[in-house]
Amino acid sequence: MSLLPHHDGSALYVPEQEPALGQRVPVFVRVPEGTDVRQVHVRTTGDGEPRFVEATVDRRDGHDVWWRADVEVRNPVSNYRFMLTGTTGYRWLNAAGQIDHDVPDHGDFKLVSHAPPPAWARDALIYQIFPDRFARSADADGRTPPDWAIPCDWDTPVIGRGPETPRQFYGGDLDGITERLDHLDRLGVNTVYLTPIFPARSNHRYDAAGFDTVDPLLGGDAALVRLADAVRARGWRLLGDITSNHTGDAHEWFTRALADVDAPERELYYFDVTTGGDGEPAYESWNGVRSLPKLNWGSAELRRRFATAPDSLLRRWLRPPYGLDGWRVDVANMTGRRGADAYTHEVARLLREVVAQTRADGLLLAEHGHDHTGDLDSDGWHGTMNYVGFTDPVWSWLRHENSAPGDAAVPGDASAPRPAWGGDGPVPNFLGTPGGVRRRDAHAVLATMNSFRSLISWRSYTHSWQLLGSHDSARVRTVVGDAARQEVAAGLLATMPGTPVVFAGDELGLTGGNGEDSRTPMPWHRPQTWDVGTFAAYRALLALRRDIPALRHGGLRWVHVDADTLVFLREATTGTVLVLARRAAGPPVRLTGLPSAGGAASGPDGENVHGGAPALRRAADGGITLPGDGPTFQVWQL
Amino acid sequence: MSLLPHHDGSALYVPEQEPALGQRVPVFVRVPEGTDVRQVHVRTTGDGEPRFVEATVDRRDGHDVWWRADVEVRNPVSNYRFMLTGTTGYRWLNAAGQIDHDVPDHGDFKLVSHAPPPAWARDALIYQIFPDRFARSADADGRTPPDWAIPCDWDTPVIGRGPETPRQFYGGDLDGITERLDHLDRLGVNTVYLTPIFPARSNHRYDAAGFDTVDPLLGGDAALVRLADAVRARGWRLLGDITSNHTGDAHEWFTRALADVDAPERELYYFDVTTGGDGEPAYESWNGVRSLPKLNWGSAELRRRFATAPDSLLRRWLRPPYGLDGWRVDVANMTGRRGADAYTHEVARLLREVVAQTRADGLLLAEHGHDHTGDLDSDGWHGTMNYVGFTDPVWSWLRHENSAPGDAAVPGDASAPRPAWGGDGPVPNFLGTPGGVRRRDAHAVLATMNSFRSLISWRSYTHSWQLLGSHDSARVRTVVGDAARQEVAAGLLATMPGTPVVFAGDELGLTGGNGEDSRTPMPWHRPQTWDVGTFAAYRALLALRRDIPALRHGGLRWVHVDADTLVFLREATTGTVLVLARRAAGPPVRLTGLPSAGGAASGPDGENVHGGAPALRRAADGGITLPGDGPTFQVWQL
Repeated sequence: MSLLPHHDGSALYVPEQEPALGQRVPVFVRVPEGTDVRQVHVRTTGDGEPRFVEATVDRRDGHDVWWRADVEVRNPVSNYRFMLTGTTGYRWLNAAGQIDHDVPDHGDFKLVSHAPPPAWARDALIYQIFPDRFARSADADGRTPPDWAIPCDWDTPVIGRGPETPRQFYGGDLDGITERLDHLDRLGVNTVYLTPIFPARSNHRYDAAGFDTVDPLLGGDAALVRLADAVRARGWRLLGDITSNHTGDAHEWFTRALADVDAPERELYYFDVTTGGDGEPAYESWNGVRSLPKLNWGSAELRRRFATAPDSLLRRWLRPPYGLDGWRVDVANMTGRRGADAYTHEVARLLREVVAQTRADGLLLAEHGHDHTGDLDSDGWHGTMNYVGFTDPVWSWLRHENSAPGDAAVPGDASAPRPAWGGDGPVPNFLGTPGGVRRRDAHAVLATMNSFRSLISWRSYTHSWQLLGSHDSARVRTVVGDAARQEVAAGLLATMPGTPVVFAGDELGLTGGNGEDSRTPMPWHRPQTWDVGTFAAYRALLALRRDIPALRHGGLRWVHVDADTLVFLREATTGTVLVLARRAAGPPVRLTGLPSAGGAASGPDGENVHGGAPALRRAADGGITLPGDGPTFQVWQL
Repeated sequence: MSLLPHHDGSALYVPEQEPALGQRVPVFVRVPEGTDVRQVHVRTTGDGEPRFVEATVDRRDGHDVWWRADVEVRNPVSNYRFMLTGTTGYRWLNAAGQIDHDVPDHGDFKLVSHAPPPAWARDALIYQIFPDRFARSADADGRTPPDWAIPCDWDTPVIGRGPETPRQFYGGDLDGITERLDHLDRLGVNTVYLTPIFPARSNHRYDAAGFDTVDPLLGGDAALVRLADAVRARGWRLLGDITSNHTGDAHEWFTRALADVDAPERELYYFDVTTGGDGEPAYESWNGVRSLPKLNWGSAELRRRFATAPDSLLRRWLRPPYGLDGWRVDVANMTGRRGADAYTHEVARLLREVVAQTRADGLLLAEHGHDHTGDLDSDGWHGTMNYVGFTDPVWSWLRHENSAPGDAAVPGDASAPRPAWGGDGPVPNFLGTPGGVRRRDAHAVLATMNSFRSLISWRSYTHSWQLLGSHDSARVRTVVGDAARQEVAAGLLATMPGTPVVFAGDELGLTGGNGEDSRTPMPWHRPQTWDVGTFAAYRALLALRRDIPALRHGGLRWVHVDADTLVFLREATTGTVLVLARRAAGPPVRLTGLPSAGGAASGPDGENVHGGAPALRRAADGGITLPGDGPTFQVWQL
């Protein structure tokens, strides 16, 4: 692959990262010397009308011609793309790459003038904790398990599928987390994200029975204050998890609504559903799960209670003494959507506005399990959980090659919205695709990553969460099958744009066949089971991201792809990083024309900073050769 | 090209063409026998959550396996796509075609439950008339040209670019049109679309000085009644043209607003603009053209006057005695868009609702000069002018091969929003792309057509206007250079999905180098200049569309493409049509596996119904061979 003309939304190409409405900002496109480009235009569509502005050569360095044009931020989200004209005609350069035919605007680059996400978020390294399974404090022993619970010893095997699944109660609590923050420190994260902590009738607590207190089984409000203080004392951030799509059926809003058709809470839910004739009350619920009645965002009263009231649940936990730094929003993809109701964007804007009012540096991050691209860049969610544009492609590239029972190309019954898998059978993906995760080569994987990335702004892409799994998915170790490929996955997690999120336990090589099965208690008391090599790899990779600004803020340029290999650059004014990810051994990759640090024609050779390969030595023609062994993950600073 | 699994939104695949919200409707996918497909799922995203339903085999005919699944119309626009699983994995089938990697939802098929466009629209064959240049009645001689006008004899050359361009006044009028309806009848159209007919200070009348009367220079209100009656008497339809983005600066709304900051009309426009320091009043206008002040759709008073009031302009011309059958909406792409204002979809819905209230069979069709895909399927415009997905690709495929002066790959100054071209230089496209229309092969052209089509519903695609040019573009004859290629263009116009629109004069082979230049007076008095061959071709092709239901309502399946050739099928329960379009001679195209009428394994051979080629005779293996001469346009009924 020879180097192609490049632009992305990073500071190297768009120095003004927080443009204001009406501002004119320069945008740069870099064209490798020798490319057939004689003229460059920028096309915009301000106020709905295409306009072309001619770019001029801003500078040349040893490798590239940098063209510049000024673009008006005419609308809150302002599209632009480049038209590169050579001797044989023109092609477009948009966020999907170079294209030789005329295309719609959805792949255009985007300048966003909405208020930016908080500055800390772009440097966040997140650790996700499922409280029931992380750690028990000494106080946990004194608590009486609730009526719904099946009390479990810490060593009890997790049941990944069955009626007991949500009822297995291990008794992890918030003070348990507070006591274990040194583990997070050694790992190298700086932000703690807790799945729900409100009272509920399940171990996952997504069926909130109230929003006014922290579950006493977790230690109550005081334990949250202790945890928040301890997190803050380390200079870290703490995020909560809020269910905006539904409550539990034990929530007092719902019990009142159910009991009395004239209750003010009645409008908070949907009761306009035909009963199934079984005599049960009828109401809309999450995917038909009756314990999760769906909230109706057409209700002004809901908006008040949830968000706008001075003491709303959204606000109160962001304030002292708790001081959460933001919210992960559960099932944001369905929130406000139901039949003809389409309040999702309104709700996202409302929640973001209220969060910003309450604390200016608050984060609002949306769960989205499939195509999130239509829900970003609308002044709502700061980002999303990028399952489709990262997790799934990485999984399908690195998936183990073993055929598990039932792992046939033709799946079995797949009519359930989210099939519940056991430990056997195909590797389920989060998206519910029948047949689970299929193995794909890097071309297909990169095409998928690019297709989602190209539909959203650089800002929304880089502020979305990049994850290898969560409490809702299989564990990455189970998906990829061994430590070597897990390191490749963790390498992509730590070096690609997007906020890395580690699901607690992944760093110890824990396994899990589906979302519920992966909610494994942390094996604190069995250090002999820890995969210390995996922990060391995660630690080193996260340290790399902390230490090298280009890995957090740099652009992304792909320079080689073959079935088993991905090679890319992260580039910033502070330096350039070259990343090699291989899922298997293959021919060494030879690259020419790579820029060196500072843009000098011949810069220093590249020192290896992860993976143990030799330093890169440039040949006489400036070319370099990357090693062919694999699986491997290697990083060089150029 | 072997035949691929196929689905589109036509009745063959979606029998319920007007689904209601909440309805479950069957969708069919057709898989050629022998294709590696063992299982089919349909993926939907109702209420924002992916669901998979397994399809079952509905029937087999000689060539295809027809799979069926039922899809719930859960939301006003409900997405779906097919997952085809074979022995080596799965691929997706969405509106963009078969895809072997995971992709976002924007290319999904769409079921739309909004009220459908009027039934007559799908059979419309439209003739566009620019009144000043079409025909003068005897009354025209008695009228005094207005102060702004440069009176022109009917033979005066049109000035395509210059200060005189909008002032050349030829004096065509509505009675002139009425007198010439026999010409339209011979051509074979059934709908007349008039560019604006309200008083103005230009020959194009897009700078309306009022909406309350028909311009007396056109014969006034009574002449419109006479024309409407004559059109209705033939069983035809009549469409008007309304400017929703701006008025003229002579409009009484604007003169009042300008004269008095406290006038109720003040809020109808944007006066929040910094003056240029030249002492002129400052206001927002269309692309900076001061004679076209932009309307502010944030104004409730504008919405009332324009649309909702009982005697609004939108309503009154739809009612007797005028009874327009609908509106083409000028500059719909910019209407309601300005900086942070984004009223476009609201306005579209409002105007459609008011039109429907006023006459249930009224049409509302949006001008859009570039990517319209984001503005359709939102219960607003019934369709758009499909310049990007039809006109431009057809032009770039059929463009003449001559290099005109200035027709270099590198264009000159292109900073103007809509460069004004003279007759020399490159062939300008409507989109304003610097350098004008470039010649492209059929692969690129089809990729462009598909990329726009795949983002909107079948309904919006088929109800959009398909045109080879208009009063805003060069004439197709000038673009393609000769009658043979114009016939190929007209063939695509008449046989592809979408509402054919003929710009008056194209059928006589008139020429024009840009939008203004193409507003040629119709040469009624010089029949020796008429290209009677072109007229005959248009007439035959439009008759074909009228006579063969599959050309109006059938699906669209591409069966062959090479650089110089496009071959497709239009398929309906009433029969199948095979279309061959060639821009140049080349190797004959051999096709196998084509279905025959009624799905029989071996049906009747295909009779040629346009173009004069021999009937298609199937070889022993069922294959057929299409002729290799060109340029040519051939149609067979299978």
